[in-house]
Amino acid sequence: MKEYDPANVFAKILRGEMPAHTIYEDEHTFAFMDIMPRSDGHALVIPRSPVRTLLDASPEDIAATFATTQRVARAAKNAFAADGITIQQFNESAGGQVVFHMHVHILPRWNGIALKPHTGEMAPGEVLARHAEKLKAALAAG
Amino acid sequence: MKEYDPANVFAKILRGEMPAHTIYEDEHTFAFMDIMPRSDGHALVIPRSPVRTLLDASPEDIAATFATTQRVARAAKNAFAADGITIQQFNESAGGQVVFHMHVHILPRWNGIALKPHTGEMAPGEVLARHAEKLKAALAAG
Repeated sequence: MKEYDPANVFAKILRGEMPAHTIYEDEHTFAFMDIMPRSDGHALVIPRSPVRTLLDASPEDIAATFATTQRVARAAKNAFAADGITIQQFNESAGGQVVFHMHVHILPRWNGIALKPHTGEMAPGEVLARHAEKLKAALAAG
Repeated sequence: MKEYDPANVFAKILRGEMPAHTIYEDEHTFAFMDIMPRSDGHALVIPRSPVRTLLDASPEDIAATFATTQRVARAAKNAFAADGITIQQFNESAGGQVVFHMHVHILPRWNGIALKPHTGEMAPGEVLARHAEKLKAALAAG
């Protein structure tokens, strides 16, 4: 098992050292917008614990992270009138992981619309802020 | 929320009406080989409960399904000397879902090797059987 590096970007967000478009947080988990969205409303859920991949996670972190994933997925379906939701979770570089703090991707999907390619380009902050507000409103509505 | 259709293929597998290359089962979950693997060792984990998508799942089904996902992912990493693991979970057709019983894809990955395209072609039974045996051995070894 590889070591957890506390200098990763998501650890910095959890410590408040970097900003994020936060949409939800509780004792065990934190959810925010992906800054390089592959679909409108693309959100991420992470455990607060210093966990590198799903393979290292405790049963408690797994239960909490995927419970929050469900909560955000339901909100995303409502907020963006999505026809479906794609969940992705990447472990190690070969598995697609780029930031080495365990995270779950929640991608709203619509019939006939493919995911955007991974360009490495950041979305405009005002777009991410607007999408975060839509998700927060849907979460508040239950 | 759309209704659960008990005539789906995974429900038939759970009822023993259709065969599967089983790799693991417990009270709440069931794991078996994907018959159209997008990588060697591509496995699926499902809850035994009649759940259509992640959005409909109970907290207990979520915790159990992703705990088994972790167990199978760890075994897959060992069994196939994988460099990483990709997890995918599709909800509704727009989200990529084809069989409407909630399931999690576990894909062993290796550096420099892309996922195979979704051809719709079944892998030979003897290959699936051999991969299932490797996963079962890795699961038994803990």
